[in-house]
Amino acid sequence: MSPELDAGRHAVKRVVGEQCTVRADVFKEGHDVLVAVIRWRQVTPKAQQTDWAEVPMRFLGNDRWEGEFPLRHNGRYEYTIEAWPDLFRTWTSELKRKVDVGRDVRSELLEGAALLEGAAKRARAAKQEDDARVLTEAATRMRQAPSPDLIAVALAPELATIASTYPDRTLARRYDKVPEVFADREKARFSSWYEFFPRSAKRDGVTHATFRDAEAWLPYVQQLGFDTVYLPPIHPIGRTARKGKNNSLTATADDVGSPWAIGATEGGHKAVHPKLGTLEDFRHFVQAAQNHGIEIALDLAFQCSPDHPYVKEHPEWFQQRPDGTIKTAENPPKRYEDIVNFDWMGPGRESLWAELESVVLHWVKQGVNTFRVDNPHTKPMQFWAWLIRRVQEAHPQVLFLSEAFTRPKVMKALAKVGFTQSYTYFTWRNFKGELQEYLEEITQPPVSDYFRGNLWPNTPDILPEFLQNAGAGAFRLRAALAGTLSSVWGMYCGYELCEGRPIPGKEEYTDSEKYQLVAWDLDRPGNIKDWIARLNTARRTHPALHQYGTLQFFTSNNDRILFYGKRTPDRSSLVLVAVSLDPYAAQEALLHVPLEWLGARPDETYQVHELMSDQRSLWQGPDVQVRLTPEQPAAIWAVHRFRRTENAFDYYE
Amino acid sequence: MSPELDAGRHAVKRVVGEQCTVRADVFKEGHDVLVAVIRWRQVTPKAQQTDWAEVPMRFLGNDRWEGEFPLRHNGRYEYTIEAWPDLFRTWTSELKRKVDVGRDVRSELLEGAALLEGAAKRARAAKQEDDARVLTEAATRMRQAPSPDLIAVALAPELATIASTYPDRTLARRYDKVPEVFADREKARFSSWYEFFPRSAKRDGVTHATFRDAEAWLPYVQQLGFDTVYLPPIHPIGRTARKGKNNSLTATADDVGSPWAIGATEGGHKAVHPKLGTLEDFRHFVQAAQNHGIEIALDLAFQCSPDHPYVKEHPEWFQQRPDGTIKTAENPPKRYEDIVNFDWMGPGRESLWAELESVVLHWVKQGVNTFRVDNPHTKPMQFWAWLIRRVQEAHPQVLFLSEAFTRPKVMKALAKVGFTQSYTYFTWRNFKGELQEYLEEITQPPVSDYFRGNLWPNTPDILPEFLQNAGAGAFRLRAALAGTLSSVWGMYCGYELCEGRPIPGKEEYTDSEKYQLVAWDLDRPGNIKDWIARLNTARRTHPALHQYGTLQFFTSNNDRILFYGKRTPDRSSLVLVAVSLDPYAAQEALLHVPLEWLGARPDETYQVHELMSDQRSLWQGPDVQVRLTPEQPAAIWAVHRFRRTENAFDYYE
Repeated sequence: MSPELDAGRHAVKRVVGEQCTVRADVFKEGHDVLVAVIRWRQVTPKAQQTDWAEVPMRFLGNDRWEGEFPLRHNGRYEYTIEAWPDLFRTWTSELKRKVDVGRDVRSELLEGAALLEGAAKRARAAKQEDDARVLTEAATRMRQAPSPDLIAVALAPELATIASTYPDRTLARRYDKVPEVFADREKARFSSWYEFFPRSAKRDGVTHATFRDAEAWLPYVQQLGFDTVYLPPIHPIGRTARKGKNNSLTATADDVGSPWAIGATEGGHKAVHPKLGTLEDFRHFVQAAQNHGIEIALDLAFQCSPDHPYVKEHPEWFQQRPDGTIKTAENPPKRYEDIVNFDWMGPGRESLWAELESVVLHWVKQGVNTFRVDNPHTKPMQFWAWLIRRVQEAHPQVLFLSEAFTRPKVMKALAKVGFTQSYTYFTWRNFKGELQEYLEEITQPPVSDYFRGNLWPNTPDILPEFLQNAGAGAFRLRAALAGTLSSVWGMYCGYELCEGRPIPGKEEYTDSEKYQLVAWDLDRPGNIKDWIARLNTARRTHPALHQYGTLQFFTSNNDRILFYGKRTPDRSSLVLVAVSLDPYAAQEALLHVPLEWLGARPDETYQVHELMSDQRSLWQGPDVQVRLTPEQPAAIWAVHRFRRTENAFDYYE
Repeated sequence: MSPELDAGRHAVKRVVGEQCTVRADVFKEGHDVLVAVIRWRQVTPKAQQTDWAEVPMRFLGNDRWEGEFPLRHNGRYEYTIEAWPDLFRTWTSELKRKVDVGRDVRSELLEGAALLEGAAKRARAAKQEDDARVLTEAATRMRQAPSPDLIAVALAPELATIASTYPDRTLARRYDKVPEVFADREKARFSSWYEFFPRSAKRDGVTHATFRDAEAWLPYVQQLGFDTVYLPPIHPIGRTARKGKNNSLTATADDVGSPWAIGATEGGHKAVHPKLGTLEDFRHFVQAAQNHGIEIALDLAFQCSPDHPYVKEHPEWFQQRPDGTIKTAENPPKRYEDIVNFDWMGPGRESLWAELESVVLHWVKQGVNTFRVDNPHTKPMQFWAWLIRRVQEAHPQVLFLSEAFTRPKVMKALAKVGFTQSYTYFTWRNFKGELQEYLEEITQPPVSDYFRGNLWPNTPDILPEFLQNAGAGAFRLRAALAGTLSSVWGMYCGYELCEGRPIPGKEEYTDSEKYQLVAWDLDRPGNIKDWIARLNTARRTHPALHQYGTLQFFTSNNDRILFYGKRTPDRSSLVLVAVSLDPYAAQEALLHVPLEWLGARPDETYQVHELMSDQRSLWQGPDVQVRLTPEQPAAIWAVHRFRRTENAFDYYE
């Protein structure tokens, strides 16, 4: 059966409004006509629970069957398959073949009558008296001497339809597993993320900003076309071993510290940093964002500064050193002196997990429905499976983005246990072969059944070498790739300003905002704000770019130009994309346009609308020459097929 | 985990003497050093049952682990995986990195001491006092002030080895499934079958032969190199509606009838046809075959002639017509008037299944350990699953060949539920692309984990068009393909005589032996007995050809010449094969010899021994020109690599 993830151990992911298509091999010895149905029900949230329902499956050939059930509401569903022989249709099919060769079918008609009487009995039990009467009458007639008329009655399709409505389900076999599918809300599959540090919202590099200041940033984000703003942790920051600028071990009195060193005397994971404001200010900020069509995503960093109230109140939640002190986080030789880790499986496990669940629910209550989870791969897999399932049971709208930059199987396992979206290796995939191979892996089944790659060209932690001291062309092309290869992408503030100064030899920003306030000049010369805004507009207005799983690569004759397309399942929206992978020089390629994929005839003329330059042109045939430059490194063509008319005459009908 | 068939629902197949290699993804959050083991035990037959044992797995990289356990005895095994963190080795790895950067490790040493004390406690519980003492002493030392000496003690690999012998298994996680593997005896994977009708053993076309007559056929079969003789049903044949020659509906008094119309007054599935002799004669025949190195395979055709004693004694085992008579078998418009089918899932199911099991056990008692099962796809899958499991529980040596020429998924499902070998579509695959595609499918995992294709160029039921009125070249090449593409193959008597007269327009023999005695002239001119004998000798004497799963196709530049190879896993036996697919004309090709696959250097000279012509030659480099003719349509080269010497000097050392 498909979809079925690890023998049904994990739920596959779909989006509300989609159908869940189920395919299975269904067969039985011999030559019986079979009937197969999908049995399905919604199980959470409670308010949406339904009883088991059944939808018929269609026979595809070669023992393969297919059907689908609707995912009308956000939440978790179960499904399985049941099949049985349609005894009456089997009988009619054999009867027809016997009649065709002139066989005496007296005995066969009596068998058919018995089958109809069985169906009539079941119809009566279901209080369908009309159907029962039709079936009984046909059975009675079939006990008479055979005649062409009688054969016609027996073979009438209407009779088989009624008889099959009351099958003998004692012969049914049910699949022995009951897989799950989780229907996320639309934003799980289509969203554009922007990350900024609200404390920098004054943009002078000196004054700690408040949420009220940060509200002024929102119209800008909206103009750039983003629909989700993700904030690094907004909680009180520890003072013990606070990091100074550029991750130095000694902080001055002015240093603001890393927001990931969560917790101080002012509070922990449920509190707001006093300099940002109050919980009420935060709620106001969430509301202001909503007024700009923006959803706020918070960071879930389940770790503590040594000053976190938990450390004193719940020493049993932490690993202790033999001298009785709490262990700080480390991955030798690296040390995170400003952070202590939880003892996930220790003696305080039960109350710790419950408390962390209450942290999530606390923020859900403040209007937060999206969480970016920090380093989930350093916490037990079963914790995430438990937490996400629990939260989504009552709040199916909550989305979790896994920030796990680790080994491929661990990243996939986190997606399997429930993370809605995942960070990816896209950040380090720059060339044609590696981009194509990786994107095909994550956007096609079986991986795409559970893994949605959220593509980020940069993060506060990662300034990849491709972007270091690079020109605007590099920033333009990486944004175009992220925004069109996947339906979910995001960037960290400064990207639109082409900020690319690294700490030499590292993939980190110099003067990293993680450790200080930054004086962003949002109108800095050389910025690519217009490019980003156009890209996000193209994404928003073209449903093909809302799709995650329909990405397909096509042929370009230049290794520096990647050519691909996306479409809606019904082809009502079709987009072709060519992106130059060369940030420094112009590149040309002959593209092979996939006419069959577009649904176009070889001689058909179709209009394309290039969305980044707003230019339209007419194309015909499969060969298109393209020239891309660092200034315009990507072409995103919306394809408008002409109305199909067999000949001019159609116009005048 | 692999192998794992349909989430562990069915057993995979291996052969006694092989290792069962198990691979799995094993990981945990964070950076702990892991230990993984395979847990395994033999479960049947009872006499071979073992307790759970454990063997270590090796880390392959990318979270993949591998290990293997031995299949020493014929029978069924269970296996699963368990893994846990090696806390002491995790600790030493971190300690080393801290020491390397000059960190104060006083507290770390105390942690290590605690780990060692835990291990010592478990060592004492296991009554390993020596180890316990070593661990305790090291722990005591580590509670002293750190010094380079002390660090050396802590990091000594010997200490880690002892500590890891007593892990804290409360931290272990076990895989939630326990798949099975069935270890067949060798003949499941390597055997050469010959089918003949013992009643024709007089070979005059008139006199019904006995088992004593049939014994005289055995030396001939041995000379042809076959190790398994399969007999069509040997039971009494019904008289009601007995078929005449060429499947005619009216039999004369002399007509012998189809052996598949089993059962008459003389007895049923446990009886021997009186004209063949007695049960004792049959046992004598089995013994005579054994003396010629031949194993006897019987037909299991679970159906009855209307005269079968079962029909009177157990009417509840059959489907009755409304008039109270028993239904004869049919697949309209085809009718099998001489046969009635069992009602497999009817009211007599329990006693019917038990009786059929007793039929198998009856013949096992007479020395039969191989069964060719007639039309298993027309009987319930769960019957075969039940029967084969039951029989092999006590008699693991029993092999079942599935004669299901039906839809691919049904054929595979039969193999999954337990059939040892399966008939295939090979009979109708004649050209390069289709042969290569099909053989790759059935000889590679996942299919080869459960499906072993027994390739037959002909059967009494099937004279494929390729062989109809064809020359000896067609028979030679199809035999060469069957005997080298798979390690199990078979042919029906007459093939070696190039018998190919069809009923026009059908794939059936004219004057089919199914309905009459045949006067085979085993020395008929134009026969290919020598070709068959050489082929079987090549198979027997070259272990590469005993392998089922190491088939690999290589490049030939002529579509009419197929080029492939097989090897033993250790490469001690290497065979290359080129077969012309053209029975009527000579064909030439340039072959690309896979030097890497052979393990040969580009400049290495190697000797090949062509086994059908007994010619030797020396080859060097990858290009070999071959010419094949209808007389010699196949070349089977045993490759002998020269002893590798770096230079002449090695010889004189």
